[in-house]
Amino acid sequence: MGLKEKDLKTTIEMQGIKAKEASKELNVISTEQKDEALYIIAEELEKEASSILKENEADLKAGKEKGFDQAFMDRLKLTEERIADFAQGLREVAALEDPTDKVVSQWTMENGLEVSKVTVPLGVLGMIYEARPNVTVDATGLALKSGNAIILKGGSSAIHSNSAIVKVIHQALEKTAIPKDAVQFIESTDRKTAQKLFTMKEYVDVLIPRGGGALIKAVVENATVPVLETGVGNCHLYIDREADLDKALNIIVNAKTDRPAVCNAAETLIIHEEWFKKHYMELDKIFKQHSIKVHGDPTVMGYFSDASPADENDWTDEYLSLEIAIKVVESQKEAIQHIEKYGTKHSEAIITESNEAADSFMKRVDAAAVYHNASTRFTDGGALGFGAEIGISTQKLHARGPMGLPALTTVKFQMRGSGQIRN
Amino acid sequence: MGLKEKDLKTTIEMQGIKAKEASKELNVISTEQKDEALYIIAEELEKEASSILKENEADLKAGKEKGFDQAFMDRLKLTEERIADFAQGLREVAALEDPTDKVVSQWTMENGLEVSKVTVPLGVLGMIYEARPNVTVDATGLALKSGNAIILKGGSSAIHSNSAIVKVIHQALEKTAIPKDAVQFIESTDRKTAQKLFTMKEYVDVLIPRGGGALIKAVVENATVPVLETGVGNCHLYIDREADLDKALNIIVNAKTDRPAVCNAAETLIIHEEWFKKHYMELDKIFKQHSIKVHGDPTVMGYFSDASPADENDWTDEYLSLEIAIKVVESQKEAIQHIEKYGTKHSEAIITESNEAADSFMKRVDAAAVYHNASTRFTDGGALGFGAEIGISTQKLHARGPMGLPALTTVKFQMRGSGQIRN
Repeated sequence: MGLKEKDLKTTIEMQGIKAKEASKELNVISTEQKDEALYIIAEELEKEASSILKENEADLKAGKEKGFDQAFMDRLKLTEERIADFAQGLREVAALEDPTDKVVSQWTMENGLEVSKVTVPLGVLGMIYEARPNVTVDATGLALKSGNAIILKGGSSAIHSNSAIVKVIHQALEKTAIPKDAVQFIESTDRKTAQKLFTMKEYVDVLIPRGGGALIKAVVENATVPVLETGVGNCHLYIDREADLDKALNIIVNAKTDRPAVCNAAETLIIHEEWFKKHYMELDKIFKQHSIKVHGDPTVMGYFSDASPADENDWTDEYLSLEIAIKVVESQKEAIQHIEKYGTKHSEAIITESNEAADSFMKRVDAAAVYHNASTRFTDGGALGFGAEIGISTQKLHARGPMGLPALTTVKFQMRGSGQIRN
Repeated sequence: MGLKEKDLKTTIEMQGIKAKEASKELNVISTEQKDEALYIIAEELEKEASSILKENEADLKAGKEKGFDQAFMDRLKLTEERIADFAQGLREVAALEDPTDKVVSQWTMENGLEVSKVTVPLGVLGMIYEARPNVTVDATGLALKSGNAIILKGGSSAIHSNSAIVKVIHQALEKTAIPKDAVQFIESTDRKTAQKLFTMKEYVDVLIPRGGGALIKAVVENATVPVLETGVGNCHLYIDREADLDKALNIIVNAKTDRPAVCNAAETLIIHEEWFKKHYMELDKIFKQHSIKVHGDPTVMGYFSDASPADENDWTDEYLSLEIAIKVVESQKEAIQHIEKYGTKHSEAIITESNEAADSFMKRVDAAAVYHNASTRFTDGGALGFGAEIGISTQKLHARGPMGLPALTTVKFQMRGSGQIRN
């Protein structure tokens, strides 16, 4: 490309072009070369930890000045150990099976034409995320392992950390068969740049937003590039009339308190009226024991003296903390209607000893994962043994639920003939 | 829903709500009930053919007044036989395997939690298409068989025909287990209505545009509902230096002339210089024999006296007629660069006796289907034995290439436990 043409392109377009070019090279290099590259990046990250931590300090300082809350600062903060974890994560991804070049199906037509449907990389991934610098490393590892180039657009609050991490990745890639251009990092925090990324269909094959609802909404509404939606989980536990008390209490505590800030945590309990009237005291006890704050519908308010009345936001939003909304219903139908109205199609559970009630719930509820007598916390690539996860898809196309390496591939029909024509 | 709330909704929103409700019922009815419904619709279409043909007359008259071309009028025109074909198509879809409720994978975790990944309907499909009334029937059949509701938005030039067909479908559905609301037809040709359909994420799970490039672009650019892009095929044949003459000529003629108006027809020949200089006379002969008009690059112009010089549009657009663009190249690399620049990722072929050249081409070219020594005309659900086809996906997410019934499903993780919690 001549200088003149280059001048006409914006930085982000140039990054798109470079990523696309690099993706073509990635498409033809071997599994061994990709794995070796991940090992080299891992090593380099550990070696350069101090330079990354120094830049992370700058982000932490700026975050403090902006008055970000403790949870946010915790996610932002890097340590020697966390960087070692990043490196370990890359080595684990290297050890996974290469998801590309797998024959999905294969047959020979009557005329002798051989058809094979094989997996191939998507091409260029656009990753849009918030303050977690670990995504920079994780997403890069998964992209490269699956033969994809990646354009990273992290949150502005982690800009120094991410920039330092990418610098180390680039340094490492110089020693590998993977072109440095396969990992592009967008420094600009300008809105127009993001907007451009969302619409560069020529160079970007898929956008993967990871973060809160507002981020995901912004991507979906502005993108012409296809989007893999991830992560918002307004998950419900429905405690059926025939729920076992111990199972119900255990699962409520686990789904709410194990890791309240994650997307597969439970946010609302829907409880059958008969069960509720029988067991509200046991419920009250575990809420107190685990410092869970209750927001209740009018029925609940009549029984729990220290609950707050639930309003529309309590049904709609994720608390991501030790708070829970409770709705009392007269039937499974009413429970399902509530889930249809407020659920985010992530993970929904029924607790019951009735297999019939369970089957009906699992068939009718439209979500990536539906559970009978288990905690929603299992909707997770790690828990399910997928090895690594690029996010949890809450949409229906391409991939649904936890997305491992195969979600970063597409297929190609390869047809081998000896002059076949169609009559 | 009370009258007051209903008043606040637009017609299209009401259609979305009804389709969504109907999709829930479709999700739980049996394969037999779905198949029976398709047979009943088929029968009713044949019985009511004359009422459909009468409405089709109105469209044909309006089309004539508007001066639409012959090809367009041919696609619009219905006959007794074509309606019988529609009915036959529905019976063939009924005979196909139900794509839902298939176990994709299944395993038991160490803690005893049983995980199964099963196929389920997408929910509500939004079908946007142009003048072919057959899409109204075909898409409805595929949607219902796969357990999906459908919202149909056909071209305004076929409004009377489509409306009559849907009336018959509704009439037939009254006699089946499928709620009539499962098939919604948008009468309005207002732009705002289409715009609303493209963004009703609450009620529509996927949009499937079928038609020309402009239609598909309008959907992609305005939709927040995920889109399955179909159909534009600017397909290339690359005649390598080591191409066999007979195979090349046969495939060129077949890919260009068998059905010039379809998306898997060839639009551009890219020919290695050495081969071209050896065989331009044979080429010229077949072009004359088959009345193929040539648009050539400067090299071609030096050899073919009656060719027109190719400009940018010749490389970019589909002719969909007996015209072809020809570019002469010095290497496979140059051929691939041309395909990358102008191809639509549909079907691309190499004609060569060198397996090495073929493998390199098939690995490097990014398209739904890549061919070695065969006509691009095989990229088609019918030709590949998929039974029926909702379109040919030229995008990479969810489905790529010809889409049969499985493309209209998604998956759901069903987790069955006995009180499992995550530690």
